[in-house]
Amino acid sequence: MKPSFISLDWGTSSLRATLVAADGAIMESRSAAGGVMTVKDRDFHTPLNAICEDWIDMHGCPIVASGMIGSRQGWVEAPYLACPATPAAAAHAFTTLRVADKVDMHIIPGVRCGGVDSIHDVMRGEETQIWGAGVGPQSLCVLPGTHNKWVFVDDNSTITHFATYMTGELYGLLTKHGILGRLMEFGTRDDEAFRAGVALGLKHPEQATHVVFAARTARLMDEMAPAGLPDYLSGILIGVEVASARAVYLPDASRPVVLIGDDDLCRRYEWALEMAGLRTERAIDGATVLGHVRIAKEAGIVDRSAH
Amino acid sequence: MKPSFISLDWGTSSLRATLVAADGAIMESRSAAGGVMTVKDRDFHTPLNAICEDWIDMHGCPIVASGMIGSRQGWVEAPYLACPATPAAAAHAFTTLRVADKVDMHIIPGVRCGGVDSIHDVMRGEETQIWGAGVGPQSLCVLPGTHNKWVFVDDNSTITHFATYMTGELYGLLTKHGILGRLMEFGTRDDEAFRAGVALGLKHPEQATHVVFAARTARLMDEMAPAGLPDYLSGILIGVEVASARAVYLPDASRPVVLIGDDDLCRRYEWALEMAGLRTERAIDGATVLGHVRIAKEAGIVDRSAH
Repeated sequence: MKPSFISLDWGTSSLRATLVAADGAIMESRSAAGGVMTVKDRDFHTPLNAICEDWIDMHGCPIVASGMIGSRQGWVEAPYLACPATPAAAAHAFTTLRVADKVDMHIIPGVRCGGVDSIHDVMRGEETQIWGAGVGPQSLCVLPGTHNKWVFVDDNSTITHFATYMTGELYGLLTKHGILGRLMEFGTRDDEAFRAGVALGLKHPEQATHVVFAARTARLMDEMAPAGLPDYLSGILIGVEVASARAVYLPDASRPVVLIGDDDLCRRYEWALEMAGLRTERAIDGATVLGHVRIAKEAGIVDRSAH
Repeated sequence: MKPSFISLDWGTSSLRATLVAADGAIMESRSAAGGVMTVKDRDFHTPLNAICEDWIDMHGCPIVASGMIGSRQGWVEAPYLACPATPAAAAHAFTTLRVADKVDMHIIPGVRCGGVDSIHDVMRGEETQIWGAGVGPQSLCVLPGTHNKWVFVDDNSTITHFATYMTGELYGLLTKHGILGRLMEFGTRDDEAFRAGVALGLKHPEQATHVVFAARTARLMDEMAPAGLPDYLSGILIGVEVASARAVYLPDASRPVVLIGDDDLCRRYEWALEMAGLRTERAIDGATVLGHVRIAKEAGIVDRSAH
């Protein structure tokens, strides 16, 4: 079958290319390490050609891309769609770049919304995952990552509001560069320590910058082994996040919260959400490519009548 | 006049030695860079001798030390006194080490207390500052630093409760190693950005790990210049801390909160506390040495009848 487009999931640290057929089916996928932060001298052509120059030459089909490639540090800065945001609106707000002879790369816009006190919030890439994940109407979704997103999706996949929590980055900074990390041993999973941390964080989101210090004092007082501290800290930060986000979204306990993303992180959020009295479900895998297919249909790149 | 002891303020990054007379008066002070974290192969003798070997040889007087020198990473781990903690109790819980012929170094214990949900909290060095600062009865004190302390001091300088907020460390990690720091320009003071951050943090302590993300989006949306971002982030974190600690200590707005420490940091807390409707006052300078003198009197090293 003839390909219709190349899907690029181009993030901070990695790049994934997928060849998509005219009917929206996946033909072939490839991964590489050529993330936006690894690109030197703004030479984005090199990692692009390395991963799929043969496809571009052979098929001459367009490219649809999402993720940090559209950020200020990316190839070109794509705008943010204001909420409420839909796949159709995204398909009409591509930022298009000619990347080879007669071949265009269409970068999907990010999404922005107004948060507490009119501070801004932004996402770039997660909107595409949500649109591909087959999320039902009126769903609350959680996308764990460096900057975790809580996203409310209304009817017809409309993203109406979201909030970012810096949980993943804070965990990385505190363990890799902070004083807490010096007391820790890494590599052992400690579910009990994780749950103890979640319980503490869930109770005291309003004391976030205080309760993280418990990951130091628990060690100083010999109440926790060095190998338990990373999961204890992870639990505290995730517990704080779940309690904070619950206060914003007031989720209906009878409807599952949809988790989208990395398996290990989703498991942590499953536990924390369950400890907070909430049900969860996992989204289907491969959400990003499916999101690209959906947006490509809206844009007329893939036949709208295809499955 | 004959010296009675050598006071050592031996912290993470610096070392300060002061020669104290029999009547408690300060005779001479010296500073060096030989903080605990700069010591190689646990050779603490070298920085000690570098700063005051002549005093030790000439006077043979004892040494009284406080700070990270008594931590697990220090010369020897000194215990923590449980709250309520007094200068007299500290003077009877020295950890003593012979550091030269007939010369003992007495390390002042740290202080611990039970925090929210029975998590532990600890301080090491700040207790000595408080005892030297001449704090009145029933005072709430704030000691800004890497790990900020809020300390309640009852009658007779008794430390009854305290809480640590990791504000200083989080600011350092986010600006030096985090994604937020990449958008920032340092070196310019921006009081307006600081106050905007404080206002946001004061309103939303229960959204701490969310509102810090505003320091990224304010830049992405071109609402703040790169030079304003460090003070904006500092304000958000300090605002969150003040709101969190206020909920724990419910300070009486008619009584000033006592600020002890570095001038620039104290100024930031003065502003944030005033924005929170609280009055402030500064403690006297040189609180650490005065704390050593007070504890040395309790220990009989300095004549108790001295001024």
